[in-house]
Amino acid sequence: MAVLLERAKGDLALLSEASATAGSESAVEREGIVLQAPITRPGKVLGVGRNYGAHAGEGGLLAQAEPRIFAKVPSSVIGTGAPIPCPASVTKLDWEVELAVVIGRHMKEIPESQALEYIAGYTIVNDVSAREFQFDVKPPQTTFAKSMDGFTPMGPVLLTADELTDPSDVALRCWVNDTLMQEGNTSDMIFPVAYILSYLSRFMTLEPGDVIATGTPSGVGCFRDPPVYLTHGDQVRMEIPPIGVLANDIT
Amino acid sequence: MAVLLERAKGDLALLSEASATAGSESAVEREGIVLQAPITRPGKVLGVGRNYGAHAGEGGLLAQAEPRIFAKVPSSVIGTGAPIPCPASVTKLDWEVELAVVIGRHMKEIPESQALEYIAGYTIVNDVSAREFQFDVKPPQTTFAKSMDGFTPMGPVLLTADELTDPSDVALRCWVNDTLMQEGNTSDMIFPVAYILSYLSRFMTLEPGDVIATGTPSGVGCFRDPPVYLTHGDQVRMEIPPIGVLANDIT
Repeated sequence: MAVLLERAKGDLALLSEASATAGSESAVEREGIVLQAPITRPGKVLGVGRNYGAHAGEGGLLAQAEPRIFAKVPSSVIGTGAPIPCPASVTKLDWEVELAVVIGRHMKEIPESQALEYIAGYTIVNDVSAREFQFDVKPPQTTFAKSMDGFTPMGPVLLTADELTDPSDVALRCWVNDTLMQEGNTSDMIFPVAYILSYLSRFMTLEPGDVIATGTPSGVGCFRDPPVYLTHGDQVRMEIPPIGVLANDIT
Repeated sequence: MAVLLERAKGDLALLSEASATAGSESAVEREGIVLQAPITRPGKVLGVGRNYGAHAGEGGLLAQAEPRIFAKVPSSVIGTGAPIPCPASVTKLDWEVELAVVIGRHMKEIPESQALEYIAGYTIVNDVSAREFQFDVKPPQTTFAKSMDGFTPMGPVLLTADELTDPSDVALRCWVNDTLMQEGNTSDMIFPVAYILSYLSRFMTLEPGDVIATGTPSGVGCFRDPPVYLTHGDQVRMEIPPIGVLANDIT
């Protein structure tokens, strides 16, 4: 069941309701409906850096023992169709298509073998990044680079976990305007979804509604030759087939 | 008026209420009262790295053109008296006393000259950090190092802005057990409070209840010779005189 969450009802109440009514899908007219992000204000949004073999390779980084973790502040979340404002001084605005996990139950110190049981569902996150804050300053300000207003487009919907039992074989694609920029599969992840959640839960409690963006495949703008960055009027369109299409324009 | 915020009433409603009743202070018995953090779940918590001359010096970093920004996830916030749990694998647990600003009004693209008008009040934040994630991995995972459960002790109270009209001359002290480890004054800040808020507001909307930790003076554990880290049973006690004392034990 793909859930269209209504903001007025409260994200977390709906997460429970969604579980209860899974399977009783009914058709909803999309016409005239504005989709908010499935979780409009998550308690926290975490991300994993360089989690796909090919993307880590294009960044020239060596193998790593554990996932690299950053955050995106909750106020950066927007839904599909909402504009991504490019701050006046930012010139290296970039895209990253990612499979994102929405947590369904409190999760602390949970082994990898049980981790998938704590997932409410899946959505798409565009991990928008101002690369000058990530790569051109020392130390890198990864979280700040990814936390500006509108930098976390999320959606179009929450696909409940019963509809995606295996997150390790999911195709991801990203177009900028009409050019296919990223095409990957979660089977290329260095750290799989269950490992990431279990790892995080050793250090912090994951709570219902928390969102974990699990990394992006190769093809982002900053590692292209020459680099490509987003400018006013561009549209970024991301697709993960069972979830849908997340599309946002740069303003 | 130092406000003891009651969780049940909701942080943000109380921020407005506090402004309305400022000056009508009444005595409250502390005995038996457990103080929650003044903002139990901020929308976002941001921090500024190396913002005091002496602390930047001890870290060996060069001068910087703009503030270095990281985040702490909201689920890491605890109140005074609550324990700071040290995760099993963390061996470089460190302290940082900071003057923290609580935002009172939506703030976007506001000049430095008006920035202080957007502050609801001030509190103390202990910017607890697992230094191995900040300094021993590449790239540094500053936000993750500072976002583990219990890593954002905050309190003891919110001092409303009418009681602290000049945040540029405030003394800060930190003891570990009975040893004075940090002693500084906000007059030593590289980027003053108003500049930090104005700078952030160029990239993201600051919202009521958001917390900005403004950096720490010299004397943290990792830059001592030899380094000193926190272990089970230690108590960290921080004082900013007009606000009070924030004390937390390591468990």
